[in-house]
Amino acid sequence: MKVPVVEKILSANDRLALENQALLDAHGVLGVNLMASPGAGKTSLIEATIDTLAGRLRLGAIDGDIATSLDADRVAARGIPAVQINTGGGCHLDANMLKSALPDLPLHDMDLLLVENVGNLVCPAEFDLGEHLRVMLLSVTEGHDKPAKYPLMFRTSNLLLLNKIDLLTYCDFDVAAATATARDLNPAQTVLQISCRTGDGLDAWIAWLEARVAELRRT
Amino acid sequence: MKVPVVEKILSANDRLALENQALLDAHGVLGVNLMASPGAGKTSLIEATIDTLAGRLRLGAIDGDIATSLDADRVAARGIPAVQINTGGGCHLDANMLKSALPDLPLHDMDLLLVENVGNLVCPAEFDLGEHLRVMLLSVTEGHDKPAKYPLMFRTSNLLLLNKIDLLTYCDFDVAAATATARDLNPAQTVLQISCRTGDGLDAWIAWLEARVAELRRT
Repeated sequence: MKVPVVEKILSANDRLALENQALLDAHGVLGVNLMASPGAGKTSLIEATIDTLAGRLRLGAIDGDIATSLDADRVAARGIPAVQINTGGGCHLDANMLKSALPDLPLHDMDLLLVENVGNLVCPAEFDLGEHLRVMLLSVTEGHDKPAKYPLMFRTSNLLLLNKIDLLTYCDFDVAAATATARDLNPAQTVLQISCRTGDGLDAWIAWLEARVAELRRT
Repeated sequence: MKVPVVEKILSANDRLALENQALLDAHGVLGVNLMASPGAGKTSLIEATIDTLAGRLRLGAIDGDIATSLDADRVAARGIPAVQINTGGGCHLDANMLKSALPDLPLHDMDLLLVENVGNLVCPAEFDLGEHLRVMLLSVTEGHDKPAKYPLMFRTSNLLLLNKIDLLTYCDFDVAAATATARDLNPAQTVLQISCRTGDGLDAWIAWLEARVAELRRT
C-alpha cells in the first residue's frame, strides 16, 4: 500500500503572500518590505524618498505600527497615498494584514509600494508579505555588532542601508566591520550608506530603486 | 448540577516566573529586567553600572540574545558573573529561559541581578521573568514618538532611562514630549536622563538601584 506523502504545502501566510505578489505583478507595482529597529529611520526614509524622487516614480506606502497613525500621517502629508495598519500589539506585519490594506491603494496608478514594517529587528523577517524585495535599515547609533546578533533579517534582505551616517563622528560604529559581518551572512546583499537628515547617499538609494522597478517591468 | 468554574490559572510562564522570584527572594537578590530596542545601550549600561557601583553592590548578569555571546563576554570581562542565553531565533526571554540560567550564578553572593533582554521594544514586555522591577532604555536617537507607538513596554516599566543624551544636540528628540507621553501611559514611572558614554546621570541611576535593593531587604 502506498503511503501518501504530501510535500511543500504552503503555510496560510505564504499562500496569501503569493496572492499579494500576484496582485502587485498584475499592476506592475514593485513591492518593497522596509524593516528595521524602532527609530532607525524608516518613516524618514520614505519621506526622503518621496522628496528625492520628485515624481519620477509613482509611490504608495503602507505603514505598520502597533498603535497610532503617526507614520502614515507623515507620509500622506507629502501627498502620496498611504494606509496605516495598526497591529494592536502584534510585533510584525503578515501577509493577511497587507492583503487587507492593498485595496485602499490606487495600484493602477503606482510604480512602487513601500511597506514600512513594525519597528523590530527580529520577527518581521520571519513573515513574507508578498514583497518583491526586502530592504533593511541599520542606524549607526545602534552599533556594528547588530548583524551578528540579529542574523536572520540581514540574511534575508536584498539591500542594507546604513542610516544616520551624519552621526558617525559621535558613535563608535565601525562601518567596515558591520559591512563585513553583513556580507558574511548574505554575500548578495548590497550595502549603501545614507543620511535621511543630510541627504547623503540618497541618490544611490534612488538609483537602486529605479533599477529594480525597471527590472520588474522587463519581466 | 454545579458547573465547575476554574479561575485564575497561571500560565506556564507565570508559574515559572513565580518560582524564579521565590528563588531570588530566598537569596535577597533584586532582579531587574532590562528591556530596549536593539542598540539602545543595554550592555553599555550594565558595564557603566559595574564601573560606577565600584563594588558597593554585588552584581550578576544574564544576557539574552538570539545569537553570539558578545554581550556576556563584555560583562564578564569586567569581573562579574555573567551567563549568556541564546534564544536561537526567539525574540524575547521567557521565565523558563531564566530558570535555566539562574543555577549558573552565585546567588548567595549577589545583591542585584541585571537581566538584559533581547533587543526588541515589543515582545519582551509580554513575558514576566520573575523580576522584581522592569527598567527600559530609550535612546534619544530613536525619536520621541516611541512611547506612543510602542505603549506596552512603557506602561509596564518602573523606570525609563533616556540614554545617549550626549547626542541630544544632533537629534530632533523632544525630551519633554517623550516624558509627557510616557507619564500619560504610566504615571508611576520614574524618568531619568543618562549617557553611558559620558557618565552623565549615572549617579541618579545608581541611587535609584541602591534604594530598591534597600527596600527589598526591608521586606
